Amino acid sequence: MQSQDVTYRDVEAAARRIAPHVHRTPVLSSEQLSRRLGGQVHFKCENFQKAGAFKSRGACNAVFRLDPAIAGRGVATHSSGNHGAALARAARRRGIPAYVVMPRGAANVKRQAVAGYGATIIECEPTLLARQAAAAELVARTGATLIHPYDHPDVIAGQGTATLELSDAIAPPSLVLAPVGGGGLLSGTAIVARHLWPDATVLGAEPSGADDAARSLARGIRQSQPEPKTIADGLRGELSDRTFALIRSYVHKIVTVSEPAIVEGMRLVWQYLKIVIEPSAAVPVGALIEHQLLAEGGSALVILSGGNVDLDALPWSSAPASARAKRRARPAAKSRARR
Amino acid sequence: MQSQDVTYRDVEAAARRIAPHVHRTPVLSSEQLSRRLGGQVHFKCENFQKAGAFKSRGACNAVFRLDPAIAGRGVATHSSGNHGAALARAARRRGIPAYVVMPRGAANVKRQAVAGYGATIIECEPTLLARQAAAAELVARTGATLIHPYDHPDVIAGQGTATLELSDAIAPPSLVLAPVGGGGLLSGTAIVARHLWPDATVLGAEPSGADDAARSLARGIRQSQPEPKTIADGLRGELSDRTFALIRSYVHKIVTVSEPAIVEGMRLVWQYLKIVIEPSAAVPVGALIEHQLLAEGGSALVILSGGNVDLDALPWSSAPASARAKRRARPAAKSRARR
Repeated sequence: MQSQDVTYRDVEAAARRIAPHVHRTPVLSSEQLSRRLGGQVHFKCENFQKAGAFKSRGACNAVFRLDPAIAGRGVATHSSGNHGAALARAARRRGIPAYVVMPRGAANVKRQAVAGYGATIIECEPTLLARQAAAAELVARTGATLIHPYDHPDVIAGQGTATLELSDAIAPPSLVLAPVGGGGLLSGTAIVARHLWPDATVLGAEPSGADDAARSLARGIRQSQPEPKTIADGLRGELSDRTFALIRSYVHKIVTVSEPAIVEGMRLVWQYLKIVIEPSAAVPVGALIEHQLLAEGGSALVILSGGNVDLDALPWSSAPASARAKRRARPAAKSRARR
Repeated sequence: MQSQDVTYRDVEAAARRIAPHVHRTPVLSSEQLSRRLGGQVHFKCENFQKAGAFKSRGACNAVFRLDPAIAGRGVATHSSGNHGAALARAARRRGIPAYVVMPRGAANVKRQAVAGYGATIIECEPTLLARQAAAAELVARTGATLIHPYDHPDVIAGQGTATLELSDAIAPPSLVLAPVGGGGLLSGTAIVARHLWPDATVLGAEPSGADDAARSLARGIRQSQPEPKTIADGLRGELSDRTFALIRSYVHKIVTVSEPAIVEGMRLVWQYLKIVIEPSAAVPVGALIEHQLLAEGGSALVILSGGNVDLDALPWSSAPASARAKRRARPAAKSRARR
């Protein structure tokens, strides 16, 4: 089954369209980290992307492709955060309103980002149904265009541009890994990777606690994800029919990753690459560790999806109680009160 | 008083000598962070340098400038960490032994780095005198050449190469800031900055709890730093006669920074630039915040000195106790035990 919903040519067009609005992010690697992971690994650093995540690519592509008459009424979405911020920013750059439905309990850093780009935030209950209902009501009321976080061809084409930027930057990798939540990034990545590197194996990396994509591929029918349980807050959504079809066409396999491996991957990236990534971005790194994917040689390209993490709630920040007490007693602690 | 101990030409020669052995590190900026700091700020990211800090520049310059007959007996130093790791790495690249005297209680991550590059570690008491004595004994015993962390012209010239790389990368800044501990980085930075940008003001940023450089400049006589108290562990040393003379010649002023401002600067860089820097690197950022140095306009260049931080002991990691308890109960905690 070949889905023609989004093609390599669409990604090329997206790259031209969004070039003035997004960063061409760097590719980093570390000899020590590669050694630790069993082979050469290149990291595409979308944590440095505008608004802190790859989501700016898809959002800009969708927003700048809108017909002017329609665009004027604004854009809307429901998003756990990164897409909301990216859409808000894209709308501001085009000079149109943005409405963002966010679940109560979304990470504070993400809420602030959305508000900081001037979008109107509409709160709802933290369920997919509540989010969809609130977004539908909003669209009916304002005439805004709904830009879904991943179930949208322009969004998927935009996400693929991260990989397109690597066409002449790295040698063909044997493995390409992207995280999978709703499947927008993985779909776009896979469309481009299969075109650029026909011999590469394209893998989606998914938290074990939100493994609807793995189950869907295994059964051949799209499965739901009623109660996701993972620290990777960007990957709690489930595939749409569109992303499921694209993933079936272009992705070789979904590998699932335990929570400890996600945290270990996140920490290794912070330690060796000296960059801040969010838990969702660490899932492919966790996959390399847990499944020893490079044990038989080869090289990997990992798309690091974003860097919007709550610095007050790091998963490894429980030092021994005595050390914590000492830290609290230090003058440094005052800065928290001042912020 | 113009000290001719180290010149701009020495830094140019150092840049050619070390080019095969160090990274040309990126320059980052963030619109949001610049807005927060009051003006355009460019960050030279030596946290991405080999061995995680600018120290690789000076260490490589000193090691590769040694006469072959002398080099064969190896190199030695006493260092709280980053210089030790950098020297160990430089020595390994030249194929000669390295001996590193380290105080008991040095950060674990730094100790591991030194050992990881194959150096012999000699432990001593955590005082400057004990370190100097142990290093002297070592040199007498092995015939190794002592490469001081900062009181060495080749080391100072090497540190200056970070700023030299910016000659055509940024518009002339109105402010140049580097942290000051022993003064090697600040000396090298100032020599280059004054040559490249004659109109710029060159500032050293120093923790208030280790302010020997500020006191030395104020009194015109080098002052000691018997009991440094700062989270910025790379800046606890004191100036040497050589770096004091260079700083008097080339640096306009030393500004001191409180511990809360250092922590706030560190956190802002993590949050907005999405990069990991160590507390010492955050001191110039803290200076921009605390003294509102960009309040009257202008732009700044900040040398971010390094990224070797203990991820288990972040200065802001005391979340509410209930959140910590929850985190401890999560499977994520297991990953620590596994490492």
